[in-house]
Amino acid sequence: MSDEHRHGRAAAEERETARIEAFSDGVFAIAITLLILELKIPHDVPEGQLLAALLHEWPAAFSFVASFLTIGIMWVNHHRLFTLIRRSDDGLLLFNGLLLFAITFVPFPTAVVAEYLRSADARLAATFYSLTGVVIAIFFNLLWRYAAKGHRLLGDGISQTAAEDLTRQYRFGPLFYLVAVGVSQLNAVAGIGVNLALAVFFAFPPAVLRKKA
Amino acid sequence: MSDEHRHGRAAAEERETARIEAFSDGVFAIAITLLILELKIPHDVPEGQLLAALLHEWPAAFSFVASFLTIGIMWVNHHRLFTLIRRSDDGLLLFNGLLLFAITFVPFPTAVVAEYLRSADARLAATFYSLTGVVIAIFFNLLWRYAAKGHRLLGDGISQTAAEDLTRQYRFGPLFYLVAVGVSQLNAVAGIGVNLALAVFFAFPPAVLRKKA
Amino acid sequence: MSDEHRHGRAAAEERETARIEAFSDGVFAIAITLLILELKIPHDVPEGQLLAALLHEWPAAFSFVASFLTIGIMWVNHHRLFTLIRRSDDGLLLFNGLLLFAITFVPFPTAVVAEYLRSADARLAATFYSLTGVVIAIFFNLLWRYAAKGHRLLGDGISQTAAEDLTRQYRFGPLFYLVAVGVSQLNAVAGIGVNLALAVFFAFPPAVLRKKA
Amino acid sequence: MSDEHRHGRAAAEERETARIEAFSDGVFAIAITLLILELKIPHDVPEGQLLAALLHEWPAAFSFVASFLTIGIMWVNHHRLFTLIRRSDDGLLLFNGLLLFAITFVPFPTAVVAEYLRSADARLAATFYSLTGVVIAIFFNLLWRYAAKGHRLLGDGISQTAAEDLTRQYRFGPLFYLVAVGVSQLNAVAGIGVNLALAVFFAFPPAVLRKKA
Repeated sequence: MSDEHRHGRAAAEERETARIEAFSDGVFAIAITLLILELKIPHDVPEGQLLAALLHEWPAAFSFVASFLTIGIMWVNHHRLFTLIRRSDDGLLLFNGLLLFAITFVPFPTAVVAEYLRSADARLAATFYSLTGVVIAIFFNLLWRYAAKGHRLLGDGISQTAAEDLTRQYRFGPLFYLVAVGVSQLNAVAGIGVNLALAVFFAFPPAVLRKKA
Repeated sequence: MSDEHRHGRAAAEERETARIEAFSDGVFAIAITLLILELKIPHDVPEGQLLAALLHEWPAAFSFVASFLTIGIMWVNHHRLFTLIRRSDDGLLLFNGLLLFAITFVPFPTAVVAEYLRSADARLAATFYSLTGVVIAIFFNLLWRYAAKGHRLLGDGISQTAAEDLTRQYRFGPLFYLVAVGVSQLNAVAGIGVNLALAVFFAFPPAVLRKKA
Repeated sequence: MSDEHRHGRAAAEERETARIEAFSDGVFAIAITLLILELKIPHDVPEGQLLAALLHEWPAAFSFVASFLTIGIMWVNHHRLFTLIRRSDDGLLLFNGLLLFAITFVPFPTAVVAEYLRSADARLAATFYSLTGVVIAIFFNLLWRYAAKGHRLLGDGISQTAAEDLTRQYRFGPLFYLVAVGVSQLNAVAGIGVNLALAVFFAFPPAVLRKKA
Repeated sequence: MSDEHRHGRAAAEERETARIEAFSDGVFAIAITLLILELKIPHDVPEGQLLAALLHEWPAAFSFVASFLTIGIMWVNHHRLFTLIRRSDDGLLLFNGLLLFAITFVPFPTAVVAEYLRSADARLAATFYSLTGVVIAIFFNLLWRYAAKGHRLLGDGISQTAAEDLTRQYRFGPLFYLVAVGVSQLNAVAGIGVNLALAVFFAFPPAVLRKKA
């Protein structure tokens, strides 16, 4: 294969991953913006009680913030992975599809928490919410491991050590969200709080990428 | 026409199909993300019954998964076609529009199945759902056949044999979904299951494209 | 100004209009996909009556089809204009914003027609729907005339005659939709039918662009 | 660092900010298009009363227009900032995320105003709406100041004076929206009107950018 041919092929492959990224970005952007639709405005509020009625919605606002942060951080991390992933194949489409599936699902547990965070079923609602985080973290690991295995879909400039560092770091994601599941079993508000804290925690990128950037 | 002129024209045509692709991607991404809005959270659940109420929603979850997969696979296939289609004209806009029309319609039969899969009208709901699949498959064939006829809108590097192979393979799509219609008449859950299975089946790309990639 | 400078500036201007196009495309794609949310599935249908209940929704389906076509054709035409418009300024942003405003409004009259096409207020609903078409057509003309006036924002390769031809043809858009308003006053279904027919009519591009393509 | 290396790095950085812009554009486009979903069509209208019922919705229409303009202008300004911002880092992602968070929140106060602008709680609803504007304006300032501080993320061609001019001008945004908060306390309709007027006011770009363009 001539150099020119190789160059043309690399360009086609980058176009390919660029389109997967663009589609994924669309799904992330829509899912994060749809969250607000689950924040229902209070109806039939008695005169002079609107402020109380709005403040009464704090569980919905709380789950809205947690989910916004979660999807936002997942977008940032997805974006970071695709600075390393430079080729695509059917497997990548599959694992990326699984991740997007879980992302589009987020508004549902968010709405469940919004409605039941003050009910007798609050811990169940928070557990359900946290389990969604576990699933997203697992799908995130599957996507990365598939792409990184034997350097399968990574760019030529990415070192094996850097990839392994990332693998090691992402590995803990599902465990962290399992902690959120456990806390949710004890206290619903604290459980959602752990989800929120995890999103903030993951906002700080792994050292390996930081060095690269 | 000089070589340079031809080159500039090809670039303009690629920009054109790129914009059609981008718009279509947007519609696919929005339709697939809107599906979750049809998953209604249970209201007024008696104390301690939230888990039962959530599990009771399995028909909605089932149709959500089937529709997510269907739209996802249609996106992948649409994307594959546009690696072969390199020119656009009014006919392509028309047939692409028909396909997008059917895609944006998917949330409606999905919601019908979610609400009626356990009712006396379950088979009607599943049949309605499967018929949407037939229509999408037909519009998909129309789009491809229009673009491929006499190599009308295909890239110069695409062989006639490859195009004909694809035509032959897509031809069976509507028939497969007709099977889903038939099964839906007998058993609603099995009918939706066939739709789900077809999406998984179509995830494996035709051999012709596999070779090319 | 050197040739190189001029070239760099042209590139920056094209990037600018490209971003306006991309944002507009996003709005068009979302508005066209949101339409389905106004198609409400029938609730509490008595056993065995689902088919009748679905068929009973034909006004909603009818307005859904008309609005899908209208927004789709508007996207195609918007797209065509931006093959001629190559520079942007604040005025273009303003007039494009007005057009997008009217486009995002379309789901509302669509829902009104869906609910009232069989009521005593059917003609009012259809008139309201058709008036939205008048407004969109006017905003479309404002956008084009602003861009084309004195060749303000058109590409260098676009002839003045071609621009004037287009101006002449778009001029009739508002009048056609005024006919739809008139028909809506007499018969609501026929009024929506005229809207649908106009969308099909506008699908055929003006001769001037056809020649260019 | 060689010139070529520097050039390649600049290209990678521009790709990076381009993707942040694209994601942000998606969120802006979706938020602005979702607004219409908060415009509820009137149900169960007595025969011949549809026109009155539609006109009765003017508070919803009024807040829809104000929010469309606000998000639209914020998009234009966001877009303008990113003609100056040419590099990205974690801080930019964070501050941009805060701004997008506030933008996706807009449909909620819009719906509150739509429902309560005629109630005894009208001024509270308008105050809540205007406070959202204050928050957006503050987040806008944070984003810009972070990027501009010590020329951190600005393009090489941007002069320090131009950046400082912009800083000085944006500084007044939160104050203007605080005026809207004050007016909302006195008269709800006037308060929303100030928001609408501010959007129109911000449509005129700061002189510094005008000169550059």
